[in-house]
Amino acid sequence: MDKNIFQKAFEANRERYLREWMELLRFPSISIDKAHNRDCIACANWLVKHLRSIGFKSRLLKTPSKPVVYAERKGLPGKPTVLFYGHYDVQPVDPIEEWHSPPFEPVLRHGRVYARGAHDDKGQLFYGFKAMETLIRQGALDVTTKIVIEGEEEGGSEGISATVKQWKDILKADVLMVTDTSTVRTGTPTIVMGLRGVIRLMAVLSGPRHDLHSGVHGGVAPNPATAMARLVATLHNPDGSVAVEGFYKGVTGPSKMERALANKAAFSAQSYRKETGVPPVAGEKRFTPAERAGFRPTIEINGIHSGYGGAGSKTIIPAKAIAKITARLVEGQDPDKCLKLIINHLHKYCPEGLRLDILEKGTSGPAVKLDPCSPLAARARRVLAALSRGETAFMWDGASIPIVAALSEVSGAEPLLIGFGRERDNIHAPNESFSLEQFRLGYLYVAMMLSELGA
Amino acid sequence: MDKNIFQKAFEANRERYLREWMELLRFPSISIDKAHNRDCIACANWLVKHLRSIGFKSRLLKTPSKPVVYAERKGLPGKPTVLFYGHYDVQPVDPIEEWHSPPFEPVLRHGRVYARGAHDDKGQLFYGFKAMETLIRQGALDVTTKIVIEGEEEGGSEGISATVKQWKDILKADVLMVTDTSTVRTGTPTIVMGLRGVIRLMAVLSGPRHDLHSGVHGGVAPNPATAMARLVATLHNPDGSVAVEGFYKGVTGPSKMERALANKAAFSAQSYRKETGVPPVAGEKRFTPAERAGFRPTIEINGIHSGYGGAGSKTIIPAKAIAKITARLVEGQDPDKCLKLIINHLHKYCPEGLRLDILEKGTSGPAVKLDPCSPLAARARRVLAALSRGETAFMWDGASIPIVAALSEVSGAEPLLIGFGRERDNIHAPNESFSLEQFRLGYLYVAMMLSELGA
Repeated sequence: MDKNIFQKAFEANRERYLREWMELLRFPSISIDKAHNRDCIACANWLVKHLRSIGFKSRLLKTPSKPVVYAERKGLPGKPTVLFYGHYDVQPVDPIEEWHSPPFEPVLRHGRVYARGAHDDKGQLFYGFKAMETLIRQGALDVTTKIVIEGEEEGGSEGISATVKQWKDILKADVLMVTDTSTVRTGTPTIVMGLRGVIRLMAVLSGPRHDLHSGVHGGVAPNPATAMARLVATLHNPDGSVAVEGFYKGVTGPSKMERALANKAAFSAQSYRKETGVPPVAGEKRFTPAERAGFRPTIEINGIHSGYGGAGSKTIIPAKAIAKITARLVEGQDPDKCLKLIINHLHKYCPEGLRLDILEKGTSGPAVKLDPCSPLAARARRVLAALSRGETAFMWDGASIPIVAALSEVSGAEPLLIGFGRERDNIHAPNESFSLEQFRLGYLYVAMMLSELGA
Repeated sequence: MDKNIFQKAFEANRERYLREWMELLRFPSISIDKAHNRDCIACANWLVKHLRSIGFKSRLLKTPSKPVVYAERKGLPGKPTVLFYGHYDVQPVDPIEEWHSPPFEPVLRHGRVYARGAHDDKGQLFYGFKAMETLIRQGALDVTTKIVIEGEEEGGSEGISATVKQWKDILKADVLMVTDTSTVRTGTPTIVMGLRGVIRLMAVLSGPRHDLHSGVHGGVAPNPATAMARLVATLHNPDGSVAVEGFYKGVTGPSKMERALANKAAFSAQSYRKETGVPPVAGEKRFTPAERAGFRPTIEINGIHSGYGGAGSKTIIPAKAIAKITARLVEGQDPDKCLKLIINHLHKYCPEGLRLDILEKGTSGPAVKLDPCSPLAARARRVLAALSRGETAFMWDGASIPIVAALSEVSGAEPLLIGFGRERDNIHAPNESFSLEQFRLGYLYVAMMLSELGA
């Protein structure tokens, strides 16, 4: 595990890495938009070919929807097996007008690569590949390495979820290595100790057969826009907590130790505001921001749309309204049960005279919570300490990687969640980017960690 | 006032009337969309030319925004002056995909002309023009006739409002004839006795600098979509009344006589539901639907938009949210005061951590309420009785014709609000239409009413 050797290899190949990474970023592999189905397949095929070129046996695994890229390489006998997980799909790009350069024409500006997927997850999977390539070239990849790159993470991992149990034999592993995570705000290398689960639905309120004249009908016909606002407003209490009955059942919140560790990485409301543009004031007031994101469930409105949105005034009562809703779940919450509770709540509070339909509902796996005192966590801390000065941070991440719980169960592997994302990377937003420095850190970490595991 | 003569003239010219009307309907004169400025001007010029061709002196009157079409023709000495008001602008056409034929390519299907503006207001002004043309040809237009056709009614009559006082000398009149109204649901000829005023604004809630990842930030960053829903939900009480403090001050509601007259035209919840697709359950529960639309103010959300609205799930906390809001006002409410009250309310309830901006705010004149016992109303009832069997209905309309109050004040004329719209005409909605039968009734009414006033 010599950091300098890897550092030299990185410097020697930097330009090529960048070129290949940009090639990968050019695929508009937006999984939730059917119009991009072909782009997703093309991206998956590119990955299969690329993994072959660096020394893996690789192929596509079929699922009911998008294929999974699978690759493996046998290590030395008696060495552990590492299962590396990532995803080749990316988020949609709208609002497209806010991008400073086209999202699928990656550009390097001031040391950062700008493109959709630059960080999430093409950047963070590709430094992993390059680290493995280096180890293979040096004859030093001693662990057996398996790679699973799915194509639907951004939409809830439907395909892999439906099929992963059938792959039990091939996926058997000791460590589930996931790099699709971020560091704490200070940038200190961070081991993620928890991920939230996620469930989703779209609520549709249908009213008049067509938009009505709001003068003639105002105060007579029920208004779906107003009604959707009122319905959505019932989901939270004034104190920021979720108002859905039974939603918190089983949630024990952070333990004393978890609270202490989570709050150790000092959280600054001021720098949060500087980074995001808003103060960290949402959610349950009785917890700190780090505790709320890491240990408390939440319901978020990802979109609400009804009626006129153009210039000037259009005096209508809209025919319908939609709300796109997701909830983040924590340990103790069953995704299917929570989805049912939310749907029941919406039906219970559905305003008079309108029809409520629930579409696009789905769950994507429960929350994941790990043990900060496990031997694997201790080894990872040693690697991170060698990578950069200062103490490693623990983070209970508010985000979700839907398939991690299921992959861990099927493979029997212990999750190891370490990645190098930063808030300013703008994932899921316009002008997503990832710096070469982040790429370098990720590359060094994967190379050193795989060496450590093979030691 | 011979109905048969007019009926014969109508039959003889029917094809030409239809052709000319369709020509007028081809102008996409959407006033609130700047992209259609030229179309509005072209439409105004067409009207000037057309009015000249049928015997009027006509020209454009300048305003700070869209021009007003003005025409006049001297009548016999001693006869009263009639000021005819209409508007050449139309509503936007979205959702365009719901139209069965292009909105500005009028087609006749089963006796109805389908086009944006077919009813509102190009159909209802054009039958007036054709009635005047007939009277002129017969040497029977004895009243002095003035015509004012503005181009911004659908956006709040900004231009004419700013200028109308300067036209005091030319607009002097005895009767302000407005046909931009509808009949009661049964189709009985209807005198409108009241119109609501209207005020408008757009609320914008700005949060994060860009869309945030809802997993990472859910429960930490305030969510503008959720917040806008909660803010909008504060505008009404659970009983359907408006919750804005002071909003009802000065509102005395319908008098006993008005209640009796308004409820005379039997209102059927069943047929309302059949026509609109919804039961008449909105607004203040302690009033009947006819009373609520005619005598009670209301706040309507014409649009609410935030975040993702496409297919599938996009897990974001949106950067901002907008709500397009209008209120309908009744007698006793001052538009400027009410606008201020609503804005104050929104600021008062603006959720923590977000910025609220109020844009596009404006008022378009107060409500209008007329006397069902006036001599003019009695003459109109006689005309309508000759036009069709059965008793004339009185209606207190929930809609607004912003400029009526100001025009009446400036001209000194008593408003006479009789038109032939029906609910199924889908004004302000896709597939707007107006039947040849409605056109014929309107034509006969204007011809007979102008004869009556010149008698």
